[in-house]
Amino acid sequence: MPVRLDRQSADFEQRFRDFLAAKREVSADVERATRAIVDDVAARGDAALLEATKKFDRLDIEAAGLRITAAEIDAAVAACDPKTVEALRFARDRIETFHRRQLPKDERFTDAAGVELGWRWSAVDAVGLYVPGGTAAYPSSVLMNAVPAKVAGVPRVVMVVPAPDGKLNPLVLAAAHLGGVSEIYRVGGAQAVAALAYGTATIAPVAKIVGPGNAYVAAAKRLVFGKVGIDMIAGPSEVLVIADDTGNADWIAADLLAQAEHDVSAQSILITDSARLAADVERAVEAQLATLPRAEIARTSWNDFGAVIKVAKLDDAVELANAIAAEHLEIMTADAEGLSNKVRNAGAIFLGAHTPEAIGDYVGGSNHVLPTARSARFSSGLGVLDFMKRTSILRCGPDQLRALGPAAMTLGQAEGLDAHSRSVGLRLNLS
Amino acid sequence: MPVRLDRQSADFEQRFRDFLAAKREVSADVERATRAIVDDVAARGDAALLEATKKFDRLDIEAAGLRITAAEIDAAVAACDPKTVEALRFARDRIETFHRRQLPKDERFTDAAGVELGWRWSAVDAVGLYVPGGTAAYPSSVLMNAVPAKVAGVPRVVMVVPAPDGKLNPLVLAAAHLGGVSEIYRVGGAQAVAALAYGTATIAPVAKIVGPGNAYVAAAKRLVFGKVGIDMIAGPSEVLVIADDTGNADWIAADLLAQAEHDVSAQSILITDSARLAADVERAVEAQLATLPRAEIARTSWNDFGAVIKVAKLDDAVELANAIAAEHLEIMTADAEGLSNKVRNAGAIFLGAHTPEAIGDYVGGSNHVLPTARSARFSSGLGVLDFMKRTSILRCGPDQLRALGPAAMTLGQAEGLDAHSRSVGLRLNLS
Repeated sequence: MPVRLDRQSADFEQRFRDFLAAKREVSADVERATRAIVDDVAARGDAALLEATKKFDRLDIEAAGLRITAAEIDAAVAACDPKTVEALRFARDRIETFHRRQLPKDERFTDAAGVELGWRWSAVDAVGLYVPGGTAAYPSSVLMNAVPAKVAGVPRVVMVVPAPDGKLNPLVLAAAHLGGVSEIYRVGGAQAVAALAYGTATIAPVAKIVGPGNAYVAAAKRLVFGKVGIDMIAGPSEVLVIADDTGNADWIAADLLAQAEHDVSAQSILITDSARLAADVERAVEAQLATLPRAEIARTSWNDFGAVIKVAKLDDAVELANAIAAEHLEIMTADAEGLSNKVRNAGAIFLGAHTPEAIGDYVGGSNHVLPTARSARFSSGLGVLDFMKRTSILRCGPDQLRALGPAAMTLGQAEGLDAHSRSVGLRLNLS
Repeated sequence: MPVRLDRQSADFEQRFRDFLAAKREVSADVERATRAIVDDVAARGDAALLEATKKFDRLDIEAAGLRITAAEIDAAVAACDPKTVEALRFARDRIETFHRRQLPKDERFTDAAGVELGWRWSAVDAVGLYVPGGTAAYPSSVLMNAVPAKVAGVPRVVMVVPAPDGKLNPLVLAAAHLGGVSEIYRVGGAQAVAALAYGTATIAPVAKIVGPGNAYVAAAKRLVFGKVGIDMIAGPSEVLVIADDTGNADWIAADLLAQAEHDVSAQSILITDSARLAADVERAVEAQLATLPRAEIARTSWNDFGAVIKVAKLDDAVELANAIAAEHLEIMTADAEGLSNKVRNAGAIFLGAHTPEAIGDYVGGSNHVLPTARSARFSSGLGVLDFMKRTSILRCGPDQLRALGPAAMTLGQAEGLDAHSRSVGLRLNLS
């Protein structure tokens, strides 16, 4: 059974706090093992990478076999269902169109004192994209990571994907091809992350690593953070649906299950001011579970982490939504737009009854890599800015230095940094 | 002696690679001790925080004494040299003006299919600002962290600063006051970071923690990353000066020393096509060291990590600058602007002979919190965006869902996520 909470009940505050604080993932102690793998690849390069690949993926190859060839990629694309490839292409185009609008503008201005100021954006030189193998190999995620990097102007996008027992998902290769990935290597796990960060004879290092992975991949990304940039550490996924009595119980149930089927630690939450709808949705969830292929996963997620929260009025739902800071927020109320404007913390908002989250997962155009586990309080979904960096620019002439210099000298002296002060004073004949 | 490299010499590539790879900081193994402190504060709150404060800062206070009162702040401001407070105010105003231009615009558009798309930026609810105690307590850094947060619209900016033996730097409190900090607590170290992340009875938790600190603070920020957002992990600072024969050796030497005086692990590098200038700068550094209060620190940094690199032509300097990815890049050449346009990797660029880095440190208006230790390859200086997050927005009506839905269903099925497909199909009467 999902948790049932009532905003009006006396113990709500405490129960809601406990609900928010509940951990959905067991963090296995993988750091020690991960560090050994990362250090080994950093020290021994390809040799360590190949040994780990043999051990973990049961794939015994030479360094020359690490890179997936153009012929293999062509063969994979040819082997895919053309309708699916067409859908990927449709998604790629929409993702590209959306993300082009995120390209930032450079800035340059001269202030009243005559000082020239501004900044310039530039793409990261090389990005590594981690793609999980096995069941979590989602071609849509390849597009969501690769396309913004290409839009940003990253010249070199390197993909790593494990090939357990030599097997690769052709759709993942097709998505990489469509997404403009420049190089693909059949390696995974912490060893692949280490290879991207430190480089080996075969894989040149990158400056930033993005993409989801298992606990070892996440731990490896934490370890190499600083040496290279990383994106967020992805946690279990969640959806929050806010609905009023106008909501369609079947549609809402389907959306809650679309989240729950991802993973046993996924979370689906309904907040509503309608007791009738709450009951109908719970019934519809049960009915739909009966015919869902991934029913076992979805049921475990729903029973362990699902929640139905009853509120007296929809404004209370806003307050709770800001505390939950959901990755995905669907709003199906009479005034969805008005309600959404009061929400500060959410990765993505899906407005109205005809915008199921699955549209955003695949073909809406916005990014489906979004902040999980309450991190929408402080972070954003993946975007073009994640593949760029800003260099600030400052220029003074003699007059401007005369105007600004004395205050800088005062502060340098106050901080005990005399060479700072002197670097200004020498130019002004003041020291 | 600083390293001397010549781009023309046979062993340059290898020596430059070694130079780039050299570690400038010994990373003490502080993680275990830090985890114990963080876990203790997370579990026991104020009691653990007060015990750690007594132990590490030799400050024995009650919970009620943690917060610095308005009267204490007023007294601190009154005790400061008015000229310094005026310089801080001048800096604050310029930082605010510069950062206002970084406020991002929301986006909303309707595409050809009629789908409404866009995003909305919002401020982080609460930010914690770590400020080191002792010699590294820089009031300018308080402004550089607090002002962008306030410009972003963060309603609650909490500062923590250790008070070893009860002592606080009045200028740090004055800067906090000028910067719009809402609460200040006299705690530091890993315990302060943990208090900000997990909250205690006295200190409400924040959503993001920024600001520099020692190895324990950096380790604590790494540990709480995910629970809250963090800024970059600051490493030792560096300056790269690119100059041609027109460069003023005394001014360049002063700038190299302004970097070197920060810390023994700071790094100052000169790249020039003029052997004459290189020799003059080295001589000027020695001459200026003779009268520098922090000569011992600056000399150690210069001797251990300084470098003078001779190139045949300035274009070679660009290539090396992109590999070095310096935090600060000063360009003093005949065509500084033209050269700067070829630089991709730098935290901040200072153009021309009259823009010493110290201007950017204090009063230029741009942020002095910049990516160190080659991280300008993948990250940017602190700015307004670091205190905001982007929520993406998507809305389909029935027609749009009909247009986009089938491709989403195809991809959901291809990824084995039938509930995703069904959430679309139910709305289209297709499942």
